[in-house]
Amino acid sequence: MAASPRNPFGVVIERPLSATVGIIEGRETLLFGTNNYLGLSQSNAARDAAIHAAQTMGVGTTGSRIANGTFGLHQKLEHALAKVFQRKHAMIFSTGYQANLGTISALVNKDDTLFLDADSHASIYDGARLSGAQIIRFRHNDPADLEKRIARTSNSTGARLIIAEGIYSMTGNIAPLKEFVEVKKRHNVPLLVDEAHSFGVLGAHGRGVAEMQNCEADIDFIVGTFSKSLGTVGGYCVTNHDEIDLIRLCSRPYMFTASLPPEIIAATLAALEEIETKPELREKLQKNAARLHEGFKSVGLNTSNFISPVIAVTLEDIPQALAFWNALLAAGVYVNLSLPPATPDNRPLLRCSVMAAHSFDEIDRAVETFGTIAKELQVA
Amino acid sequence: MAASPRNPFGVVIERPLSATVGIIEGRETLLFGTNNYLGLSQSNAARDAAIHAAQTMGVGTTGSRIANGTFGLHQKLEHALAKVFQRKHAMIFSTGYQANLGTISALVNKDDTLFLDADSHASIYDGARLSGAQIIRFRHNDPADLEKRIARTSNSTGARLIIAEGIYSMTGNIAPLKEFVEVKKRHNVPLLVDEAHSFGVLGAHGRGVAEMQNCEADIDFIVGTFSKSLGTVGGYCVTNHDEIDLIRLCSRPYMFTASLPPEIIAATLAALEEIETKPELREKLQKNAARLHEGFKSVGLNTSNFISPVIAVTLEDIPQALAFWNALLAAGVYVNLSLPPATPDNRPLLRCSVMAAHSFDEIDRAVETFGTIAKELQVA
Repeated sequence: MAASPRNPFGVVIERPLSATVGIIEGRETLLFGTNNYLGLSQSNAARDAAIHAAQTMGVGTTGSRIANGTFGLHQKLEHALAKVFQRKHAMIFSTGYQANLGTISALVNKDDTLFLDADSHASIYDGARLSGAQIIRFRHNDPADLEKRIARTSNSTGARLIIAEGIYSMTGNIAPLKEFVEVKKRHNVPLLVDEAHSFGVLGAHGRGVAEMQNCEADIDFIVGTFSKSLGTVGGYCVTNHDEIDLIRLCSRPYMFTASLPPEIIAATLAALEEIETKPELREKLQKNAARLHEGFKSVGLNTSNFISPVIAVTLEDIPQALAFWNALLAAGVYVNLSLPPATPDNRPLLRCSVMAAHSFDEIDRAVETFGTIAKELQVA
Repeated sequence: MAASPRNPFGVVIERPLSATVGIIEGRETLLFGTNNYLGLSQSNAARDAAIHAAQTMGVGTTGSRIANGTFGLHQKLEHALAKVFQRKHAMIFSTGYQANLGTISALVNKDDTLFLDADSHASIYDGARLSGAQIIRFRHNDPADLEKRIARTSNSTGARLIIAEGIYSMTGNIAPLKEFVEVKKRHNVPLLVDEAHSFGVLGAHGRGVAEMQNCEADIDFIVGTFSKSLGTVGGYCVTNHDEIDLIRLCSRPYMFTASLPPEIIAATLAALEEIETKPELREKLQKNAARLHEGFKSVGLNTSNFISPVIAVTLEDIPQALAFWNALLAAGVYVNLSLPPATPDNRPLLRCSVMAAHSFDEIDRAVETFGTIAKELQVA
């Protein structure tokens, strides 16, 4: 198995053949490194909706939501999201990145304080930076550390806001939101949760970690994205706070950007309906996640104990990780490579993700490939 | 002409009927407040390309450009943009907003200095803020003021970068790029130009103000957007600087966002080809801009002297501007309302834009409507 070195950040999927297989370097390659958890980027309903929208409404709006960029469709999607989350308000943004930038920078400013999980996504850090607020990091997934740091700011006169994620994108770790809720209630500090990787994936109705842990009512703002389980691009914030209409007029990453094209909105609406009406997609995803997790354990790989659709294999050093990643691609399996300092614990990760669309056979082939390479590289 | 007050930032285009007409409040309304300068959001070639991409590749990539989000199509569009601009490199971003954030924040950091035109777009200011660089504002479109401020920083040890726009989006003002180039050469400071509103619109081949003023070779970085003349959504940076591949690995707004869906990329490629092969679109746009500009002058309105596809009518105060804007919409003409403090000179603007797709009859009807309302409100 010769693995000529490739640039792990320069992979080109020449074209996708299905949700689970793409052509890379001219060969069919199993995709185990996407965020396409339900396979909906290839949904026929979403494609048909996008095609109909392109035919009837064109390929773009050429305007901001506060000028000529609100079509009836944008409002329809906002109403649908509010309904799914059982919230009064929903706002959509042109990317998930801008959803965090736009929500955070509108909610707090330089007189305020943000409490961020140390492993927060770049879009949360960038939103915090854009807001100018003081940033206090708490230990990853650690409610006690959060509480200690909040208590130290009890004399603060500015606003305070806690931010956490549902599933952490690199490791698949799941946040203890229920415990964060207890902290926020004791100190009366609002909580924003980014369910980017958990929406459509966890919870009885797919609303994410907050639903799974039965603490939705106490989350003040939920931010999410269309580019994971929904299969398109864009982001949103849902809330019961009536100030959201003010956010529409003070959030620069919402106001000063073109709105999403009609075909993206239409595809997202169709995907949202599939998430609501096809719980079997989530069930299949859970089974697949368990099978991949168990498979990795069976061949001796070092993974997190969380069973989520993101499963990270931790390796010892960068040369080993590069060799492993290259050998996987040479053997027809694509995963994501994450290198320090971007990784927790400063160790490299092979970040794998599973989809509802994977067959057990595809999962078993991936596990077998991992096992063979692990032996060759003396990892396991 | 009763004008019941509406929220000028809450307009809904229930659906577009064509590039120039949309349904607003149930009625056909002439659109004179978009950025759809060539009408390409409704291009049949772009629609067909989007439809084919949705059919063959799905509705999204669900990944970052540095992970699973680079399809062959993304590279094809980058190559096409580099060729159009005759540059070595092109990078595409998921929004135009993120193109400025991602380019600026990657080029400079806290030890560096940015020289920004005082009327810069929010995305330039936000990129500057995210970079942490020192921000020095120079007087709008004033090369002498820029030079004075640059000269004061001659002992600076950090990097310096000048940023200007081609056409300013609110006023239609055109930048004196050729004079800025003389300043940049005398002081050896690189120049970044945002041609968001000028690409496809000005210059013999539609490459913008730099082409029109024959100074392209001396512009270091050109940033632009897909959501104006190209009719879709997204942004780009083109350059001859080989460091661009480093930008791909250090620009957070490039790395930490999902890439554009295949149907958007395909539609943008088709629109780019139309810009290259249909110079008649630009000629028609210029004729339409001249006609609208002349029409406004003929009915006594206060507009800029630049003849560009953006023509702003300056009014005296906010109540007058709100009444004018409402009366226009009631009479079936949609334009953008810009209020202080977001406007130059702290006076309200009716920001109008013209398209190649407008007929002379549509322009004349808009001018007549403006003239009637101006008389009623005793503006002209």
